[in-house]
Amino acid sequence: MSEKTTEQAATTKPFSFKLLKTEGMARRGEITTPHGKVRTPAFMPVGTQATVKAMYPQQVRDLGADVVLGNTYHLMLRPTAERIAKLGGLHKFMGWDHTILTDSGGFQVMSLSGLRKMTEEGVTFSSHHDGSKHFMSPERSVEIQGLLGSDIQMQLDECIALPAERSEVERAMQLSLRWAERSRNQFESMGGPQKGQGLYGIVQGGDVPDLRIESAQRLGELPMEGYSVGGLAVGEPQAVMLKMLEITTPAMPNDKPRYLMGVGTPEDILESVARGIDQFDCVMPTRAGRHGLAYTRFGKVNLKNARHSEDPRPLDEESQCEAASKYSRAYLHHLVRVNEGLGAMLLTWNNLAYYQYLMQGIRDAIDEGRFEEFRQQTKEDWARGDLEPYVWS
Amino acid sequence: MSEKTTEQAATTKPFSFKLLKTEGMARRGEITTPHGKVRTPAFMPVGTQATVKAMYPQQVRDLGADVVLGNTYHLMLRPTAERIAKLGGLHKFMGWDHTILTDSGGFQVMSLSGLRKMTEEGVTFSSHHDGSKHFMSPERSVEIQGLLGSDIQMQLDECIALPAERSEVERAMQLSLRWAERSRNQFESMGGPQKGQGLYGIVQGGDVPDLRIESAQRLGELPMEGYSVGGLAVGEPQAVMLKMLEITTPAMPNDKPRYLMGVGTPEDILESVARGIDQFDCVMPTRAGRHGLAYTRFGKVNLKNARHSEDPRPLDEESQCEAASKYSRAYLHHLVRVNEGLGAMLLTWNNLAYYQYLMQGIRDAIDEGRFEEFRQQTKEDWARGDLEPYVWS
Repeated sequence: MSEKTTEQAATTKPFSFKLLKTEGMARRGEITTPHGKVRTPAFMPVGTQATVKAMYPQQVRDLGADVVLGNTYHLMLRPTAERIAKLGGLHKFMGWDHTILTDSGGFQVMSLSGLRKMTEEGVTFSSHHDGSKHFMSPERSVEIQGLLGSDIQMQLDECIALPAERSEVERAMQLSLRWAERSRNQFESMGGPQKGQGLYGIVQGGDVPDLRIESAQRLGELPMEGYSVGGLAVGEPQAVMLKMLEITTPAMPNDKPRYLMGVGTPEDILESVARGIDQFDCVMPTRAGRHGLAYTRFGKVNLKNARHSEDPRPLDEESQCEAASKYSRAYLHHLVRVNEGLGAMLLTWNNLAYYQYLMQGIRDAIDEGRFEEFRQQTKEDWARGDLEPYVWS
Repeated sequence: MSEKTTEQAATTKPFSFKLLKTEGMARRGEITTPHGKVRTPAFMPVGTQATVKAMYPQQVRDLGADVVLGNTYHLMLRPTAERIAKLGGLHKFMGWDHTILTDSGGFQVMSLSGLRKMTEEGVTFSSHHDGSKHFMSPERSVEIQGLLGSDIQMQLDECIALPAERSEVERAMQLSLRWAERSRNQFESMGGPQKGQGLYGIVQGGDVPDLRIESAQRLGELPMEGYSVGGLAVGEPQAVMLKMLEITTPAMPNDKPRYLMGVGTPEDILESVARGIDQFDCVMPTRAGRHGLAYTRFGKVNLKNARHSEDPRPLDEESQCEAASKYSRAYLHHLVRVNEGLGAMLLTWNNLAYYQYLMQGIRDAIDEGRFEEFRQQTKEDWARGDLEPYVWS
């Protein structure tokens, strides 16, 4: 890894996005950050507390991840952004020499922290660890992300749960636009563009089409390096999410990356790529791996189920990932059943391998002008479902 | 790994032990089992439930382990010995193609299970999982170990806590001798010797010198492939344990491997090698790794301690193990503090690496006739202690 660090740290290229190929709304692209290139469409494993849970950093890289996500809310509380900065930044701290994207912290301030008071200026909240008081504003969020040394930073926004009244959706959307501008000013005053880093604005507007369009268009007038779609996958049906994407992405700049935050299942990802999305993150593959669930080419497999207890077959013998091809379902079932750490390690590994395999498949298909065919085939494979139970002869 | 499997599975050599070199009582040797060679003195990582906790099997192998231990008590309850046999045996089940040693299950029947009734015939006990009733006898223990396909099997014995009355120590020692004979008969009736497997008898006798000697001598009359020292490291001071070893090992056969069960700290191991022991197992390196404790050349380091919170230095920059040389103490502290699985993964890796490094050092030193020097130097390093706290300039 060390040669790469040196080579990549030396780059001073500006943040950039190249659109390489399209098929319908699906896009194949490449983002350049201070820590290398990100092939899109990209899935970004979540490394909440400066670690992709139950994985060594090199394993994550070897699966084909070009970028991982860090959570500003968690890191600002422990070990704190200032401490990470003192120790040389998040890349060095967590042993990940490739691109890092950080969220603004806003989503978790809303969902995890205690007492909150929100004003135009920002949010005062208390830590879920020890109740200590903290203040988060658009400026402070970008400051923290700068201290972490994040390559792709997010503006602070307000994300509300659905369903919600139109007036409430509109208020949060307008506030998010004002916060986008303040975030941009902070990012530029910190020299983010000169460092080759990027700041993404976040489209809000809930499930209200005209608000989504207004948000996307007005955000597009700000000179961001990329644009996120926020406030989806927060409880609404998949059909609503996809409908919103169909309305939103055409109103977003064509020459900048588009990131759908917190999404999703393999099917969510495939269908969102078909609607013009380039970047994804989700805790599903890692969290599911810690709960006995495996993603495979043929859908989801629940290893807790007793049907696997004497099944000598691996999860997927054709997988390039050892976790999928080398260990029997019976062994995985045993590990999950007795709550052994290796169960979480192997299933997380398998799941991230599957997600990266899916993304590589998507990228290859767009490259070769057969994304539509790939999409149909992939959905057929999922529909086929898992193997029949094993029968001992 | 697969090439090795084939090669090793094909061997039909009898179980053997070669004594290669000695220095004082310290011995350098080599055990041959159906799954390869075991360089002694050897430390055997504990894989209680068919996994060395928080480690991939290949990592354990890459650290230099020739043998891991499986716990009969745990495996007979979940997933059961019969199921593992159906699936091709423990080696295949857990993805470990090298030597496996199993205990008899007796120790954990005594320490973990519920209601127990002990007779000359065996022990009836209830599972700590669900209270279900089970019966364990010398014959059943060897039967289970045969079903698992264990290369090095242990007789069922009775291990009592110290301090204890002489009469109680003697009763348990005599019972263990009768059980050794029954275990041997079962092992031979199952064709263990023809399969190249070994059965070890277990010396008991508590902290009573003449009982230890009697146990060792009478056990030595049975044609076992190796001999264990049981009933030590059960609460007595280290000095008592070492004294018992000084009395016991000279009474044990010289041409067979000697295994000190459940021991111990690095110092216990070094001092026990100096008293003629060849094999060790202990949960310390793995358990400590899950509790924020690291073993290094300079003693034990508690990563929970706040002194590490801003320390950019690795645990030991000269270590060959990435867990020790690549990650900062500050990062390890953070992972332990926020209870991330990667913390347990890295510290377990570090600890097993240190234990294997120590064993390799011991073996090289005996090979080169400088064990005594190595022993002194190693103890001086431990006494030096860990680095001074880091000071930021």
